[in-house]
Amino acid sequence: MIKVGIIGSTGYAGGELTRLLLGHKEVEIKWYGSKSYIDKKYYEVYQNFFKIVDNKCLGDSIDELSSMVDVIFTATPQGFCSSLMNEEILSRTKVIDLSADFRIKDVDIYEKWYGIHHKIPKLIEQAVYGLCEINRSNIKNARLVANPGCYPTCTILSIYPLLKEGLIDINSIIVDAKSGASGAGRSAKIDNLYCEVNENIKAYGITNHRHTPEIEEQLSYAAGNDVRINFTPHLVPMNRGILTTAYASLNSDTTYEKVKAAYDKYYDEEKFVRVLDKDVYPQTKWIKGSNYVDVNFKIDDRTNRIIIMGAMDNLNKGAAGQAIQNMNLMFGIEETTGLIQVPMFP
Amino acid sequence: MIKVGIIGSTGYAGGELTRLLLGHKEVEIKWYGSKSYIDKKYYEVYQNFFKIVDNKCLGDSIDELSSMVDVIFTATPQGFCSSLMNEEILSRTKVIDLSADFRIKDVDIYEKWYGIHHKIPKLIEQAVYGLCEINRSNIKNARLVANPGCYPTCTILSIYPLLKEGLIDINSIIVDAKSGASGAGRSAKIDNLYCEVNENIKAYGITNHRHTPEIEEQLSYAAGNDVRINFTPHLVPMNRGILTTAYASLNSDTTYEKVKAAYDKYYDEEKFVRVLDKDVYPQTKWIKGSNYVDVNFKIDDRTNRIIIMGAMDNLNKGAAGQAIQNMNLMFGIEETTGLIQVPMFP
Amino acid sequence: MIKVGIIGSTGYAGGELTRLLLGHKEVEIKWYGSKSYIDKKYYEVYQNFFKIVDNKCLGDSIDELSSMVDVIFTATPQGFCSSLMNEEILSRTKVIDLSADFRIKDVDIYEKWYGIHHKIPKLIEQAVYGLCEINRSNIKNARLVANPGCYPTCTILSIYPLLKEGLIDINSIIVDAKSGASGAGRSAKIDNLYCEVNENIKAYGITNHRHTPEIEEQLSYAAGNDVRINFTPHLVPMNRGILTTAYASLNSDTTYEKVKAAYDKYYDEEKFVRVLDKDVYPQTKWIKGSNYVDVNFKIDDRTNRIIIMGAMDNLNKGAAGQAIQNMNLMFGIEETTGLIQVPMFP
Amino acid sequence: MIKVGIIGSTGYAGGELTRLLLGHKEVEIKWYGSKSYIDKKYYEVYQNFFKIVDNKCLGDSIDELSSMVDVIFTATPQGFCSSLMNEEILSRTKVIDLSADFRIKDVDIYEKWYGIHHKIPKLIEQAVYGLCEINRSNIKNARLVANPGCYPTCTILSIYPLLKEGLIDINSIIVDAKSGASGAGRSAKIDNLYCEVNENIKAYGITNHRHTPEIEEQLSYAAGNDVRINFTPHLVPMNRGILTTAYASLNSDTTYEKVKAAYDKYYDEEKFVRVLDKDVYPQTKWIKGSNYVDVNFKIDDRTNRIIIMGAMDNLNKGAAGQAIQNMNLMFGIEETTGLIQVPMFP
Repeated sequence: MIKVGIIGSTGYAGGELTRLLLGHKEVEIKWYGSKSYIDKKYYEVYQNFFKIVDNKCLGDSIDELSSMVDVIFTATPQGFCSSLMNEEILSRTKVIDLSADFRIKDVDIYEKWYGIHHKIPKLIEQAVYGLCEINRSNIKNARLVANPGCYPTCTILSIYPLLKEGLIDINSIIVDAKSGASGAGRSAKIDNLYCEVNENIKAYGITNHRHTPEIEEQLSYAAGNDVRINFTPHLVPMNRGILTTAYASLNSDTTYEKVKAAYDKYYDEEKFVRVLDKDVYPQTKWIKGSNYVDVNFKIDDRTNRIIIMGAMDNLNKGAAGQAIQNMNLMFGIEETTGLIQVPMFP
Repeated sequence: MIKVGIIGSTGYAGGELTRLLLGHKEVEIKWYGSKSYIDKKYYEVYQNFFKIVDNKCLGDSIDELSSMVDVIFTATPQGFCSSLMNEEILSRTKVIDLSADFRIKDVDIYEKWYGIHHKIPKLIEQAVYGLCEINRSNIKNARLVANPGCYPTCTILSIYPLLKEGLIDINSIIVDAKSGASGAGRSAKIDNLYCEVNENIKAYGITNHRHTPEIEEQLSYAAGNDVRINFTPHLVPMNRGILTTAYASLNSDTTYEKVKAAYDKYYDEEKFVRVLDKDVYPQTKWIKGSNYVDVNFKIDDRTNRIIIMGAMDNLNKGAAGQAIQNMNLMFGIEETTGLIQVPMFP
Repeated sequence: MIKVGIIGSTGYAGGELTRLLLGHKEVEIKWYGSKSYIDKKYYEVYQNFFKIVDNKCLGDSIDELSSMVDVIFTATPQGFCSSLMNEEILSRTKVIDLSADFRIKDVDIYEKWYGIHHKIPKLIEQAVYGLCEINRSNIKNARLVANPGCYPTCTILSIYPLLKEGLIDINSIIVDAKSGASGAGRSAKIDNLYCEVNENIKAYGITNHRHTPEIEEQLSYAAGNDVRINFTPHLVPMNRGILTTAYASLNSDTTYEKVKAAYDKYYDEEKFVRVLDKDVYPQTKWIKGSNYVDVNFKIDDRTNRIIIMGAMDNLNKGAAGQAIQNMNLMFGIEETTGLIQVPMFP
Repeated sequence: MIKVGIIGSTGYAGGELTRLLLGHKEVEIKWYGSKSYIDKKYYEVYQNFFKIVDNKCLGDSIDELSSMVDVIFTATPQGFCSSLMNEEILSRTKVIDLSADFRIKDVDIYEKWYGIHHKIPKLIEQAVYGLCEINRSNIKNARLVANPGCYPTCTILSIYPLLKEGLIDINSIIVDAKSGASGAGRSAKIDNLYCEVNENIKAYGITNHRHTPEIEEQLSYAAGNDVRINFTPHLVPMNRGILTTAYASLNSDTTYEKVKAAYDKYYDEEKFVRVLDKDVYPQTKWIKGSNYVDVNFKIDDRTNRIIIMGAMDNLNKGAAGQAIQNMNLMFGIEETTGLIQVPMFP
């Protein structure tokens, strides 16, 4: 059994981690970390776990924790994981960080976009960006995995084949993304109240959302060249789900068949990326509660652009599910273990 | 492996059956019946099953089906299962009917409340009412199980211990129930359109909802006496979930301790009925996607009444989950097989 | 023009007051009070008022304010209005208090249920309970009006004729109420976050909700006898609207015709209470944004009980609309002025 | 008083027309047309009008109607108005068509995108495109007004100043739009059921939505050159509201100041277009129930693109409100009459 500790177990991503790990047959959760609820029963915070989890919430004593478990998940605010992390901890346990602290290789970019001083930049180099479908072999050997952001996961996976195969103009990419409210986390803010989110749609983080440089870095690797994008997220009145609608200009000889072949090339063998049938487009309701990313595209001959769509559960493949997929890779067990949930509808 | 056929696999309850059965390690689905979508791929109706189920939808040729499978689930409109059923089919296969056709022992009451002529009343007697926590031993030997209605399951389980132990006035029971919209099924009616259900709450079936006699029959068995109730369901703008709030006058010497002891007596050993901690009350969000029923109560000394609450997923424990629980009992396998999903929140 | 000041103008009820008063042709708003947003433009808090209201938010200096305006609306937390109020203020201006401070005549009951020490109990006596349909003549002469609570307004108006005419057993009343989330106000609490309220229904304040004694007091006046009720409110995932479903046992000779006649007697001339046609029941979607209360009933011969339903917009007739209706009465202008909005659907 | 007839009064846009016209002090509604509900009381279809409208629904005998009223609103499916219309009717009454039949000047484009044979193309020329802020003077003299589509209204108004002033590359425009479910109308389709729309977001009409040529035609007039765009609408789980997020590349010398000046130039005097303050972006919740369009923009220096946002109530300014604004212009009365509702929040 893999012994697991979770720091930040009472956020929404932490709750999803717990839900999924409880169904993972090779895992035992040893530590439910939650600074806000220390000594409270975990199920008192999340009553869905009543009669299922009897543990109390613990703090974030990572030294103690690192001696007890094989892997730590940190589902904590930006800047927190890097403030705790050091070589010694990593010598004792593996770490999968669900925050952004180790995702961006250039620490200046991190510090500029996040407005946070990075406490331990020397660890960034060895951190592996945990987008399993793309970085699988590196993840297998990683001690420290930077679990990708929700928007980046959906965006990168839906555009990746086009850049790898050189089918689109890399200066033309625009990503218009839509997310449910769980992406904003479980903190008590007026903007996240029911009556503020319900019956409303808004854009936010326009031109400056923090996931922008993360997406750009990964797309640049795929393109072999610097990629700049426009990225505009929107808040949608629903609990879970991300839909990304991306636009790009096609390179001159790109055809439907070439694009289709590119998607098949990269995703035919992938369990969790489903390239939909022609003329069927992603909807978030079809992936809720699962680790799937549904993708598809349509070419507009009138404008010579391609519209690329991806749908994903932000808490699952966009956070906890992918973190477990990373764990499976890091521990050499079957990648899909604990992640074979059928999406729940309605 | 238990070979399974589903008639009515493309309704919401049918979809949930499929979702749950796919995770049941001793089951193989051989027949996806759906009159409306014959020859269409099942995943074309429900894209959540894309790359998971490759079967086409089939019709309702129950004779053919009964020779192929060990058990048939009928998730069909009222009157349909009874019009197909006969001794011969039951001699070849077990049947779990998710409709109301075999729930009510008195055929006159069925015909009056449902406005349907019952085609094969002689089978009603041998049908077993599939409320597992209460009828477990009979279910084990049944060929034909009448899977309980959603409101009845939640109502009966939350009130049952009080009647068994004689703690409340049996003439005083009032049930005010609230359900999400999936309970209304997947038929195209103006009343079920998004804009009609959203931002609204309404009562319906006031004094004449068809689940009333089903609840009364079962509560009467528990009380050992005829029970008449008021039952008022409401439509709530959410997908899944039922909350029942019931009211009853306490018998003269009823105390908190006696009531608590009654719940513990009947449910301490039950996996799927969770009696919540004191002062914690059921909410539908904590049971979504699972087979749990959460119950609790509060005594109002000012009025000498007890308020009893139950929360349940109408598609799961209220339909598909309970049907599988019945199947497990009928086939002598562990009752919880395939039903250990942790509720999904948010 | 009536000069108006609002204390607590940036809560949800305050926002609704502003919206409605802006459409009231005999009113001029002179003071947008909001402790939390002093010096901020009102439209920066509520962008719906952009280019409509240019005022800045002011504090709660009620002395200054009382010299400037003809009437003050206090849409503030319990205990606040009574802590500010005194004879001098009331000698200068009228006051309509949307909080509970002056609703309950027995100060002990107020202090017990609210857990607040009442600062100026001697003013309670002269305060008039502002349920216009019932207290119209007293309101006309009032200096201080206690604007009714949302649940009480809907509950009392829907049951009132039955008690006045002695048609029901006064010891049998059970009120099961359902409200949208705006009733919880605009404070940043985890329980009110979008993901906590959405896709959920729960009961709260079971046996101890503060609106209970307010309802009981008014129903007791109507019955001419002490009335004790069970009152259970529920939180429904929608922005606005209250539905009350009440149950009572009929007195022996009560018939449909007598009940119908009672409703007609009290409400035939009332503009804002709509007794619906037979077999048509209240739904919150039909009154959204308006000052209407829709009521109807159904008799259940099987149990000899009556089910009484009422639907109302909690922010409008349940708060701001009724407050304006009170103002109209207090200033001797047409009662419906500024309140003739057609309900908005969908 | 202006005598008004509505054909299609029981659709969502028809209901909004009724709601708004009832508050219009110079209008009298003489005809509630609704083929589906002939002889039924209008309030039986929409209970919000109970005790407000007592009329019965009538058919679509436009000849009879045209002799009775000063203006007819047709809120009917595509192809219907053009099948009824002729010179004689227009000689007797004015017509405001809320469908697409007379919006597109090139009948071939209409027939191609709509797949409908246009019955009376000769009337297209005299029809005036009723986007009031842009076509005001022509509307004043029109007999037949083509009321703009919902997406086009929001899109065109938010982009118009940029094209008029030549600030963006006309080949670079991408419009990603989001709409609430009332835009899909009140027809009973599975795709529009509550459980299908709730907790979901999807794109639809990708590359081929019918509003595309309408937007392109109007933007081309503004640019003085052919404009081709990408337009992708999305369905959002809410009742009302459209948000458009548009992207375009800036021409070389475009600055923030120039853009801001362009918006001010065209909209400073406009009552219903609100250019928001810097760094405040449109949200649908702030315009619900009103005739406002909120617009704003942000320049992304990194990509030299501008992001332009518009928010609007699809049933109000996007349909009924704008239709009334057109009527006011056509009858020479104050343009804002009956349209001064403050947006309703929450």
